[in-house]
Amino acid sequence: MKVAFLQTSPLFGKVRENVEKAVRRLNSIDAELVVLPELFSTGYQFRSKKEALGLSEDVTAGYATSRLIEAAKAGKMHIVAGIAERAGGRVYNSSVLVGPRGVVGVYRKAHLFWNEKKIFARGDTPLKVYNIGKARVGMMICFDWIFPEVARTLALKGADIICQPSNLVLPFCPQAMITRSIENRVFSITANRVGVERRVKGRALEFIGSSQIVSPAGTVIRRAGGRREEAGAADIEPRDARDKHITPLNHIMKDRRVDIFEL
Amino acid sequence: MKVAFLQTSPLFGKVRENVEKAVRRLNSIDAELVVLPELFSTGYQFRSKKEALGLSEDVTAGYATSRLIEAAKAGKMHIVAGIAERAGGRVYNSSVLVGPRGVVGVYRKAHLFWNEKKIFARGDTPLKVYNIGKARVGMMICFDWIFPEVARTLALKGADIICQPSNLVLPFCPQAMITRSIENRVFSITANRVGVERRVKGRALEFIGSSQIVSPAGTVIRRAGGRREEAGAADIEPRDARDKHITPLNHIMKDRRVDIFEL
Repeated sequence: MKVAFLQTSPLFGKVRENVEKAVRRLNSIDAELVVLPELFSTGYQFRSKKEALGLSEDVTAGYATSRLIEAAKAGKMHIVAGIAERAGGRVYNSSVLVGPRGVVGVYRKAHLFWNEKKIFARGDTPLKVYNIGKARVGMMICFDWIFPEVARTLALKGADIICQPSNLVLPFCPQAMITRSIENRVFSITANRVGVERRVKGRALEFIGSSQIVSPAGTVIRRAGGRREEAGAADIEPRDARDKHITPLNHIMKDRRVDIFEL
Repeated sequence: MKVAFLQTSPLFGKVRENVEKAVRRLNSIDAELVVLPELFSTGYQFRSKKEALGLSEDVTAGYATSRLIEAAKAGKMHIVAGIAERAGGRVYNSSVLVGPRGVVGVYRKAHLFWNEKKIFARGDTPLKVYNIGKARVGMMICFDWIFPEVARTLALKGADIICQPSNLVLPFCPQAMITRSIENRVFSITANRVGVERRVKGRALEFIGSSQIVSPAGTVIRRAGGRREEAGAADIEPRDARDKHITPLNHIMKDRRVDIFEL
């Protein structure tokens, strides 16, 4: 199964430009599953809830999702992408999974980072795994990485591949996602953005890129650089994620001593 | 507070030699908490339960523990060390915490790696945190690292410092322990061994060293090399582990969305 990340550099507020640029690149990627960054269509640093509301969109009828579905149809692929989702007067930092036949699933970010708490509503969706034919796919978003329970829960629910749209600024996540892959024996695909975004309250954010595809054994199959837009693809065997043995005598899930764990 | 690891190279089966060498080095270390490797007194590759039973010892009356307590008295320190513990006719892969006044606590390894399952009994102690005055200390052993729930449980129980006696052969743990420190905002001290041990069933094991001290922010304060016996010390402020904020708006423990986590 061919999977890929598409590392982009969204322009803040330019939804149509960002979406069309991404769609053009999607049309040239030969893969069955492609992951885009968090908030790929809007950019990241909203000044207010009102601004976010204005740039957000409904998942089923929105511009970004509609165009992604068209790209999925054309490319016979599934796409995971982060958008600002409007629902019931609120805005969620969401990840959508779309395929040729439409929206497959939506995950609303559970762990909001820093000022996101002032903009977005807290995610109210479960951590869920979707069967897209060749693989079972779970979604998490950016800062969710710091909570090992997120990837663990997705793995316990049967994910072969964890897709992680991101807007990373701290340097720790790419390495931590290797650990997430190893400890759950799953593939992980992190799609991060690059570029520097406008100042909000004196703070300009520089995103670190370094999008990557990691195997269940912890091998970084592909990793992007830190500065440029780029796509990275790999041919993987999703079933590798279903053998949870790290040694013939160690099954990473069955070995878990839940009798002494606290949650 | 001064903390340290002592990276050693035990000779298999030479308990007195291994213990005396470690005690000599302990006497020269200026620290209030020192962590030694897993099975520091016996070596690692037992051929049988019987052999392990012969080399194991009772925690309260054993040679290794008694000598460590003497060293703790002399150095006014606490010591965490891995031993083969005999109890009720069984052998556990254990970690002891001793201080100037004797044994403070024992942890019996919960997650046995590969052939350890044929030698040791499965740990039957809880994950526990001990107050040693200047810090609250938790213990885990080697392969426990791959289960994020272990460090998480110790952190939830209030550990400032996680001590990890190890006999690492795989390359992933030092990096993963950085993630463990970040995701729990705790200090971690990994004491690994070096050297190559005798062949058992054709397999000689080479241990990777790389003992380290990591801060709650994920900084590797000290890291040893991969080939030589060495001690590494650092001056730390255990209270840094009690502020669980990674940003002013993100408390790494309170942010946890346990409502959507599975254990």
